[in-house]
Amino acid sequence: MSNAIYGRMRPFAHVITLDEARAIVANAARPITRVEPVTLLDAPGRVLAEEVHAAINVPAFDRAMMDGYAVRMADTKGASAAAPARLQLVDALFAGAAPERALAPGECVEIATGAPIPSGADAVVMVEETERHDQAVHIRTAARERQHIAPQGSDIHIGDLVLRAGEVLSAAKVGALAALGLARVPVYARPRVVIFSTGNEVVEPGQASTAASVYDVNRFTLTALVSAHGGHPQPRPPVSDDLDALGRAFDEACDADVLVCSGGSSVGERDLLLDVIRARGDVLFHGIAVKPGKPTAFARVGSTILFGMPGNPTSCLTNGYVLLVPLLRAMARLPPWMPATVRARLGTRVSSPPDRHQFYPVRVDGDVATPVFKGSGDITSLSQADGYFEIPAGSGSMEVGTEVVVRLFEVRGA
Amino acid sequence: MSNAIYGRMRPFAHVITLDEARAIVANAARPITRVEPVTLLDAPGRVLAEEVHAAINVPAFDRAMMDGYAVRMADTKGASAAAPARLQLVDALFAGAAPERALAPGECVEIATGAPIPSGADAVVMVEETERHDQAVHIRTAARERQHIAPQGSDIHIGDLVLRAGEVLSAAKVGALAALGLARVPVYARPRVVIFSTGNEVVEPGQASTAASVYDVNRFTLTALVSAHGGHPQPRPPVSDDLDALGRAFDEACDADVLVCSGGSSVGERDLLLDVIRARGDVLFHGIAVKPGKPTAFARVGSTILFGMPGNPTSCLTNGYVLLVPLLRAMARLPPWMPATVRARLGTRVSSPPDRHQFYPVRVDGDVATPVFKGSGDITSLSQADGYFEIPAGSGSMEVGTEVVVRLFEVRGA
Repeated sequence: MSNAIYGRMRPFAHVITLDEARAIVANAARPITRVEPVTLLDAPGRVLAEEVHAAINVPAFDRAMMDGYAVRMADTKGASAAAPARLQLVDALFAGAAPERALAPGECVEIATGAPIPSGADAVVMVEETERHDQAVHIRTAARERQHIAPQGSDIHIGDLVLRAGEVLSAAKVGALAALGLARVPVYARPRVVIFSTGNEVVEPGQASTAASVYDVNRFTLTALVSAHGGHPQPRPPVSDDLDALGRAFDEACDADVLVCSGGSSVGERDLLLDVIRARGDVLFHGIAVKPGKPTAFARVGSTILFGMPGNPTSCLTNGYVLLVPLLRAMARLPPWMPATVRARLGTRVSSPPDRHQFYPVRVDGDVATPVFKGSGDITSLSQADGYFEIPAGSGSMEVGTEVVVRLFEVRGA
Repeated sequence: MSNAIYGRMRPFAHVITLDEARAIVANAARPITRVEPVTLLDAPGRVLAEEVHAAINVPAFDRAMMDGYAVRMADTKGASAAAPARLQLVDALFAGAAPERALAPGECVEIATGAPIPSGADAVVMVEETERHDQAVHIRTAARERQHIAPQGSDIHIGDLVLRAGEVLSAAKVGALAALGLARVPVYARPRVVIFSTGNEVVEPGQASTAASVYDVNRFTLTALVSAHGGHPQPRPPVSDDLDALGRAFDEACDADVLVCSGGSSVGERDLLLDVIRARGDVLFHGIAVKPGKPTAFARVGSTILFGMPGNPTSCLTNGYVLLVPLLRAMARLPPWMPATVRARLGTRVSSPPDRHQFYPVRVDGDVATPVFKGSGDITSLSQADGYFEIPAGSGSMEVGTEVVVRLFEVRGA
C-alpha cells in the first residue's frame, strides 16, 4: 500500500491577495527584446520594433487628383463660361505613365486621376468645367494655383518619422508601410508560451478514455487565450504526475518565455511541482485569496516565467484571464486588455467567501446577469457564461437585482 | 494622341445615401453554408456548424474533489475531535487509477483530488479533518452525504445539449468540446475574399518604383481587415487597368464569396469596371453620399458579392470598416462588430459637406480628439488616427470643444 499522497500533503504556506499577485506578475513581466522580420501580410497586430522613416516621398510625384486637364494656371486667368480660355490639347496622360514632354503656354493635356502632372502644368481643371472641340479645349473657370494636384510628398515626406517603435500595426499603419514600398518590417517576437496539463488521469481528446481518465481541457483553453493576446502558443501533450516526467517537461521548455502548466498545484500534488520548480528557480508566490483559482503558483525558472495553474478548468481559465493575459500583453508590448463591459442586474442571489476575491461567471440576457457558476472543476461554469463580475473580499452576499458590471469574455452581438 | 479618358467620362448616375447602401449590403449578405472540420487548436473564433450533444458524462465517474479519505458516511456518524471515528486504511487512490476493490464497512481509502471514488464509499473527508496512526485513520467530523464528490455527469450529462449551432467558439466553449473528448468539430467555412488593386500605376511593395508608380496599399489594409473580421483573405497582385486583364481577374475569382477590388471606380476608369461587372452580373449600387468613399460600386456576379472600392487608400479603408466588415461578419455568422468608443472634445473646428455623411478620422489624446484627415488619397489620414467620428449629412460645421463619440479602430491602452 502506498503512502505517497499523505506524505506530500501540506497546507498553503502563505496565501496572498489578488492585488499582491497582480503586482508580482506585473513586476516579473519583461517585454520581449527579440526582433524578427515579417511580411506586410503577416504584420497586422504585431508590434513594430524600429522607427520607420520615409525613404521616399508619397506620392513620389505631383499627382492628379481629378480626371480632367492639366493646364498652366496663367492660361486660364479670367476664364468664364461666356469667355472660356481656349487651350490646345497635346497629349493624354494615364495613371502609371510618365509624361514625355513639358507643357508649353497655351497647351493642355488630358489627365486621369493618379497620373503625374507634366512639367510646366500647375493646375488640373475638372472635366465638368470644360468643353471639348476636337483638339481645342474650352476652360470655363479660372484655375487656382495647384488645384486638384496632390504635391509630391504631401502624404508622406521623405525623411518623415512615419511610425514609432512600439506601435501596434493596425490595418492603416500597415497601409502606411506599404505606401513606402516596404515588403517586410521588423517586429518584436511574440512571447513563446509552452502549455501542458499534468496528471496521470489526463488524456488527449480523440483518444479512448479509461474508467479513471479525464480529457485534457486546459491545454485548449489556454492555447486559445494565448493566441488571442499576442502570445505564440506551443501546446504539448499531457505530462504524467511524477518527478522525472515533470522535470523533463520543464527542461524541454527552457527556451520558452512563459511556461503554463496546469494541475499538480493542489495540496496533494503541489509539492511535486514546487520541488521541480525549486530545483531550478524561485517560487514568487503560491496561493492567492481568489475564488476560483486559489492554488496557483508563479515562479521564475532561468529566464522563463512559470504559471502553475489549478487543474480545475474554470479555475485555470479564470486565472488565465486575470493573471496570464496581463503578463502576456506586457511581454508582447500590447496595450492592456480592455474587455467590453455591460451593466446588468443579478438574476439570483450570490454569496461569496469573506476572505477571497471572487470572480463570478454569468450569462447575460438583456439586462439580467444570471450566475452560471457550478464548480471550479466544471468547464460549463465558463462555457455557458458571457463574462464575469467581481466580488471583492469582505463583500459577503449580493441580493437579486444588485447592479453588477460584467466584463465580457468576447465581443457579443448587438 | 489618345482619346480614351475623355470618352469614358460620365457623371455618377445615381448616388444613394449611406443608410440605403447599408441596407443593400445587408440584404446581399448570405451566411456561408459550407462546413469544414477543424481541430480544437484551430477552433477558437470559429462558428460551430452543428449542435453538440454530450456522448459521455463529464466527469465520467464520481470524482474526488479534495485530497483526503474516501469513507462510508455511515461510519463517520457522530464523529468529533473528542470521539473520532476510527477507520482502517486499506488502499491509496491516485488520479488516473481505477479502484480495484469496493470499500467495506469500517474501511477508508486515501484519495487524491481527481481520483475515482471506490464503490461503497459515499463521501470524502478532507485530510485536515483527520489524523493518521499507521494503518488507522481518525476522522474528527461526521461526513455529509456525497461531500467533496463531483458526481458522474455533474458538469455535463450524457445527452446534454452542450453547444448550439452558430455559437462562436470562445476559449471556454472549446474547453467544453475538449472535455467531451472531441478532437475536431464542424465549423462554418470563413468567407473567401479575393482582394486586388487595379491600375497601371500600382506596383507591389518591395519592387522598384518608376516615376509614375505608386505602391499597392489597399491590398494590405483590406487583407488585415478581412482577417480580423472572420474572412479568409486571398490577396492577389495588382491588375492592370484594361478590359481583358480585369475580366480575367474577375473570372479567376469566380469561386470567391466576395471580391474586393480597388481603383477603377472614379469617373475616368469606373466605366471599365462597370462594363466588366455588367458583362457578368448586376450592379446593386454605384456611388454613395459619404466622404470619403463616394465612388464605391457594389454588385453581384454569379454567387460572388463584389465591392469596387475607391483607389484612394483612406476612402477604401473607411468603406472597408463601414460596409465590408458588416457584410463579412454577416456572411461569417459572427455578431456585429462593436468597436470600443470614447467620448472626446474636438481639438479643432471641422466642416462637412452638407450633402454627404462624413467619417472624420481623429487622433485621441486624453479627452481631446484631433482631426487628422488630410485627403482621401492620403494613407496618413488613417494611419495616424485612433478612430473616427461621424458627421451626418446636413450637419454643417462643428466647433472646437464639441463632444464627439469616437469609434476606435483597435483596442487602445488604458
